[in-house]
Amino acid sequence: MLMKKARWIWYRGDFEIYHHMLLSCRRQEYGCDYPCQWHISRPEVSASFIRDFTAEKDGAVRVVTRSKGMVRFGGKLHPVNTELRVPAGEHRIVVELYDIEKFPSFFIDSDVLVTDETWTAECFDRAPVPVGWKPGFFSAEDDPSVFPFAYEDIKPASAEKIPGGILYDFGKETFGPVTVSIPAGESAALIYGESREEATEPENALVRETLTSSDAPVRPARAFRYIFVMSENAEKVGISARYEYLPIEDKASFSCDRELVNRVWDLCSYTFRLNSREFFLDGIKRDRWVWSGDAYQSYMIARYLHHDPSVTERTIVSLLGKPPYRTHINTINDYSAYLIISVWEHYFATGDEAFLRSVWDRVKELYRFIVSRLDENGFVVRRPGDWIFIDWGVLDKDGPHCAEQILLWQVYRSMARLAGVLGEEDDYSVRADALFGKIHAFFWDREKGAYIDTFASGKRFVSRQTNVFAILFDFAEGLQKDRVIENAILNPDLPQITTPYFKLYELLALCRIGRLETAQDYIESYWGGMLREGATSVWEAYDPTQRGAEHFAMYGSAFGKSLCHAWGSGPILLLSRYCAGVYPTSVGGETFNVEPDPGRYHAFDATIPIGSGTVRVKYSAPTVTVETDVPGGTFVCGDAETPLEPGRSYRFEIR
Amino acid sequence: MLMKKARWIWYRGDFEIYHHMLLSCRRQEYGCDYPCQWHISRPEVSASFIRDFTAEKDGAVRVVTRSKGMVRFGGKLHPVNTELRVPAGEHRIVVELYDIEKFPSFFIDSDVLVTDETWTAECFDRAPVPVGWKPGFFSAEDDPSVFPFAYEDIKPASAEKIPGGILYDFGKETFGPVTVSIPAGESAALIYGESREEATEPENALVRETLTSSDAPVRPARAFRYIFVMSENAEKVGISARYEYLPIEDKASFSCDRELVNRVWDLCSYTFRLNSREFFLDGIKRDRWVWSGDAYQSYMIARYLHHDPSVTERTIVSLLGKPPYRTHINTINDYSAYLIISVWEHYFATGDEAFLRSVWDRVKELYRFIVSRLDENGFVVRRPGDWIFIDWGVLDKDGPHCAEQILLWQVYRSMARLAGVLGEEDDYSVRADALFGKIHAFFWDREKGAYIDTFASGKRFVSRQTNVFAILFDFAEGLQKDRVIENAILNPDLPQITTPYFKLYELLALCRIGRLETAQDYIESYWGGMLREGATSVWEAYDPTQRGAEHFAMYGSAFGKSLCHAWGSGPILLLSRYCAGVYPTSVGGETFNVEPDPGRYHAFDATIPIGSGTVRVKYSAPTVTVETDVPGGTFVCGDAETPLEPGRSYRFEIR
Repeated sequence: MLMKKARWIWYRGDFEIYHHMLLSCRRQEYGCDYPCQWHISRPEVSASFIRDFTAEKDGAVRVVTRSKGMVRFGGKLHPVNTELRVPAGEHRIVVELYDIEKFPSFFIDSDVLVTDETWTAECFDRAPVPVGWKPGFFSAEDDPSVFPFAYEDIKPASAEKIPGGILYDFGKETFGPVTVSIPAGESAALIYGESREEATEPENALVRETLTSSDAPVRPARAFRYIFVMSENAEKVGISARYEYLPIEDKASFSCDRELVNRVWDLCSYTFRLNSREFFLDGIKRDRWVWSGDAYQSYMIARYLHHDPSVTERTIVSLLGKPPYRTHINTINDYSAYLIISVWEHYFATGDEAFLRSVWDRVKELYRFIVSRLDENGFVVRRPGDWIFIDWGVLDKDGPHCAEQILLWQVYRSMARLAGVLGEEDDYSVRADALFGKIHAFFWDREKGAYIDTFASGKRFVSRQTNVFAILFDFAEGLQKDRVIENAILNPDLPQITTPYFKLYELLALCRIGRLETAQDYIESYWGGMLREGATSVWEAYDPTQRGAEHFAMYGSAFGKSLCHAWGSGPILLLSRYCAGVYPTSVGGETFNVEPDPGRYHAFDATIPIGSGTVRVKYSAPTVTVETDVPGGTFVCGDAETPLEPGRSYRFEIR
Repeated sequence: MLMKKARWIWYRGDFEIYHHMLLSCRRQEYGCDYPCQWHISRPEVSASFIRDFTAEKDGAVRVVTRSKGMVRFGGKLHPVNTELRVPAGEHRIVVELYDIEKFPSFFIDSDVLVTDETWTAECFDRAPVPVGWKPGFFSAEDDPSVFPFAYEDIKPASAEKIPGGILYDFGKETFGPVTVSIPAGESAALIYGESREEATEPENALVRETLTSSDAPVRPARAFRYIFVMSENAEKVGISARYEYLPIEDKASFSCDRELVNRVWDLCSYTFRLNSREFFLDGIKRDRWVWSGDAYQSYMIARYLHHDPSVTERTIVSLLGKPPYRTHINTINDYSAYLIISVWEHYFATGDEAFLRSVWDRVKELYRFIVSRLDENGFVVRRPGDWIFIDWGVLDKDGPHCAEQILLWQVYRSMARLAGVLGEEDDYSVRADALFGKIHAFFWDREKGAYIDTFASGKRFVSRQTNVFAILFDFAEGLQKDRVIENAILNPDLPQITTPYFKLYELLALCRIGRLETAQDYIESYWGGMLREGATSVWEAYDPTQRGAEHFAMYGSAFGKSLCHAWGSGPILLLSRYCAGVYPTSVGGETFNVEPDPGRYHAFDATIPIGSGTVRVKYSAPTVTVETDVPGGTFVCGDAETPLEPGRSYRFEIR
C-alpha cells in the first residue's frame, strides 16, 4: 500500500468558514469593534469521518485532535487521543467529533493508516463528501484553527520625538502584530497610521488603542507604516513588529523601458501580496472584509501574478458561506453575480472539477436565490434588502439597471457552462438567449447608439459603466459593438468613471478594443502619480488635483481612505494580458495564445505563468522573442498564427 | 414614561440554540465523548439591536456586554461598556455586536433607557424581529450563556467500604455536579451509577472518569444515585455533590385512597422534574439529547404538572433549530410530525400568538421539507436518511406506514389551524381531506375491520400502534371507530405494545374510549412494580419478569437502561386528564370541562391548573366537590352540563 502523506482533515469548507468568521470579526475603528454588516456563517459543530482500509500488518493508530469525540472501531467505542491497536486485515474506522469553540478536525499518522484526502465526512444531515485539508497542516502539532501565515521581524526605519511621544516610521506600508513593552504602572496610546498625518492625529486615526502594562504585549495584526507611541515616557515604551504575510511567490514578472512602469508593477505586486491573506481583502486597514466585487478583480490579477488557486478558492468558499441565502452576497446584487461568474472563470483557468463539485450545490442555491427575485420580465430589480451597486458615480438606478442584466446574462452563461462540465442539464442557455433579446428590446437605444442604464425612468441615460460591461462580457456584437465603442466607450462627453474599481473594468474594455496605449498612459498618470506622492502601496483612490492630507480623506473621515487596496493592482493584469498578451484559450490553459502588443513601450521583458508552465515574452523593437516550457501555445499577430513548441525560442517582428 | 424592568436581550432563539448546542455535546459513555447523531445548529455570530426612544431628561446609558461591538448613537460610533451621555429628546440607538464564543447579548439599565422586550433585532439578512430574553437575566452581572439552574447541597446517605474503594449512596436518583478533592499525587476513578450494580462494575458503567489532583475538582453535572470512588486511598478522597435543577413548581397535585398510586404520582413528579431542564430530556443519564417524540409526551405532561410554557417553548425552539432542513427532526419522520403538531397543541393550550409568530417561518419550512418528500400518492415514505420509527416492536414497515400518514393528516390539520390563527390561507385543509380519503382507500381493511400498517407488503398486518393513533388523533369515526376499538384496541390477539413510550399513547386511547380502569390497573402493576423493585425515579422500561440487575440492561449494554426517563411520567397526564377530568375546550383554556371519573378509586383529591387558574376536584364516593378560581368551567357528567362559577363550591353525585 502506497501510504500518502498524513494531514489534518475536517469537514469540507469548515476551515474557510471558520477563518472567514474570525476575519469578519476583526475590524476596529475609532476604538470600536466594528461588526461585519452582513450575515456570517459558522463552521459545523460536529462531523463524522469515515475510512475503509486494509492494514497489511498489525499496527496502532492514534486520533490526534483538540476536538472532542470518539472512535468507532472494531465494534467498540474508543476515546480520541489514545492508541488503538489495529490487527492486520480489513477495517472501517469512524471518527465522530464535535468542537464548540473551533471546528472538528483531527490527524492520524501511522504505519497502517493516515488521514488524507481519501477520507469522507458527513455532518449527519448530508451525504458523505470528501474531507477538507490544506497545506500547512501536516504534523500532529499543527493547528488548523491558526492560519499559517509567515512572519518576518521588521524594524522602524526611524524614530522621531514629537510632542506627546515618539513617532516610529517603518519605511513603508506593512501589516502585522506589534509587540509593546510598557513599564509597570505606565500607560501608552498606540496610534496606527498608514500616513504620518494619520498617526499623529489621534482623534481622527482609524486604528488606535490605549494600553497599560497589564495588557497583552502582542497586539492584533494591523496595517501601518507609522506608529505613534503617545506616553509621558514614550522612550521607555519598547516597540517591535513582525510582518505577517502569506508565503506565496510571484510567478509573473514584467519590466519595460519605462522605469516608472516598473515601479508601478512592484507597487502593485506588494499591494496585492498584502491583501492576499486568508482571503482576498479589499484593503488591509479598512475594512478587511471579503467583498465579492473586489475579490472578482483579485481573482483575475492572481491568475497572472501568483497563478495559485488557493486564495481564490478560499475566497469563493468563504463568500458562498452557508445557505440559506436570504440576502445577496455582501448584500449587493452584482456581487452575487460576480461570485457565480467567478466559479466559471476559476474552472476555466484551472480545470479543477473537484473544486467545482465541492461548491456546486451552493452555487446552484445562490443561483436559485438570484432567480427567485427577478421581476415579471426576468430582470434583476431592487428587492427589499438589495443593494444595486455597480459603481459609485452617476448612474440611473431608477428602475431595472442594464448592467445588472448583463451580469445576469453572464450568470446564465456561466451556469450553462458549469452544468455542461458536470453533465447536468437545465434551462440556463435558454434563459441566457431569452434575456439577451429582452435586454436589447428594453435597454438598447437606437437613437443614442448605446445601452441606457434603465428604460423605467424615461431619462434614457447612457453611462460608461453599462457600456463597459457590454464590451467586457462580449455582450455587444457586430454593429452594435461598434456603436457602443463610438458612442459610449470613446465618447468624451459621458461622465468619467471616478473609482479605481470600475476604472479597471474600463481599462480592460479599452484594451479589448485595442486601446492598450490608453491603459499604459493611465498607468503612468494614475499609478505613477501616486508614486510621485510617496505611496508605498496602491491607494484606494487617487485624485491628482488633491494636495497633502486631502489624499487621505474618504467616506467623510479625515483618514477614511485605505492606502493599500487590492483593486489598485490592476496594472499586473493589464500588462500580463494585453502587453505580454498571454491568455488561455481552453480549460486549464491547455491551449493558450501569446499575442504581445508593446503599445507605447520600446522594450519589455515579461514572464507569465499559464497552465502548468510559463511563457517568456521579450520585446525589443521591432523584435519579440517568445519561449514557453509547456505545449499548447500559439503566437498570434493579426491574422497570423504560429504554434509554439516548448523549449524553442521564437523570434517575430511586430509592427 | 413607564420604565420596564431591564433584562438581558439577544437575537430571538439564540439562547435556546446555544444551550441546545452545549447540551448536545455533553453525552459521555464508557470514557468517550459521544457526539450527537444529528445536525446541531449554532447561534448567530452577530446581530444588530435597535430602539427608538424619548429621553424625558438628560441621562446616560451603558451597554453592558461580554460580546464585542459598538453603539451607533448621536451620529457617532461608541465602544460598548462605556457611558454614553443621552440628552433629553428623541433618539435612535443601534447596538451592533458579535460573539464568536457564545452569542451576542447585552444589558442596559438606566433612567432613560432599558433593554426589554420592546427592542428589535436583526442578523443582517432578515427583517427585524422582537428580541429574545428569559427570566433569570435581570442584572448586569447575569450571564445568559450560563443556564440559571438552582442548586442544593446533597450529602451521601451512606458510605460503604467495598473492595477497591468507597461506595457512596445518595439515597435516590439525582443529578448535579460532584466536587472531588484528591490528595496531591494521588488519583481516583469515579464510577457513577444509577444502580448499585452499575457503580460497582467499572467496566460496564456508562459514566466513569479517572482523575488526579490536578483535574478540575468540580465535575460536570451527571446523573447518579451511587458514586464509587476507586482509589488506594479512597478515604482520603473528599466528595460532595450538589443537586442541580430547574426551579419550577408543581401546580398539579393528586392523591387517592390507593397509597401506591400516590407514591407513583410522586415518583413521576420527581422524574419529570429531573428531566425538565434547559429542555425536556429523554433521560438524565443517557443520552441527554432532545428527542421530539419524547418531548411531545413531555409537553402533554407539563401542561398539567407545571402548567408553565417555558420548557416546552425552549424545547420547540431548540428542536426547530435553524433551517435548512436536510433531514427530519432527530432524523425521524414521525418526530418532525410531532413537532408541528406540538406547535398547534401548545398554541391551543396557551393562546400565545407571539410565540407562534416567533416560530412560524421555521414551522412552515419544516412543513415544506415534509411535503417535499411525499410519494406520488401524497404518502410519507422512507427517503434516504429517513427513520420511520413509530415504535420499537412488531410493525410492518415494508411500504408507506399508516401511522405516518395519520400523523401527516394531523400535521395538515395543525397547519390549517395555525394558519387560521395568523390569518394566512393555504391548501392545508384541502390536503387533510384528500389524505383522509386516501388513507381509507389504501389502509382500511374492511375484512379485518382495522387499519393495516401498510398495503405494500401484502401482509395486511394490523398493529396496535397504528390503530391507537386512529383513536388518539380522532381519525377513525363512527362505525369505523367502533370496529377499530373491537378489532385492534381491545383485541388481545394482537402483539402487545412493549415500550412505555407507546404504552402512554395506548393508555390515552383507552381512557379516550372510557377505559380509565385499564390505565389505573396498569399504573399499579407497571409503575407500582417499579416502586416495589426500589425505583426512586421512573425507569426507561420495566419488565416484571426480569430479576435483579437484568432490569438495568438495554440496547445490548449491562447498564444501558436509563433509570430516570421522562416518558415514564404519564400517570400525571392520565390521572389529571381522565380521573380528575380537567381539560380545555377552547384556546388558552378560556373555557374548560371538568368531567371526573373515579374509575377504581373510592376517593381522590386533585388540584389541576387550567388557563390562568386551578380546579380542585375532590371525590369521596359517591360525591364529587368541584371548585374553580377562574371563569369558563363546565362540569360534565354524561350528557348533563353545569356551568361552574369561580369561587363557588359545587357538589355532584356521580355513579
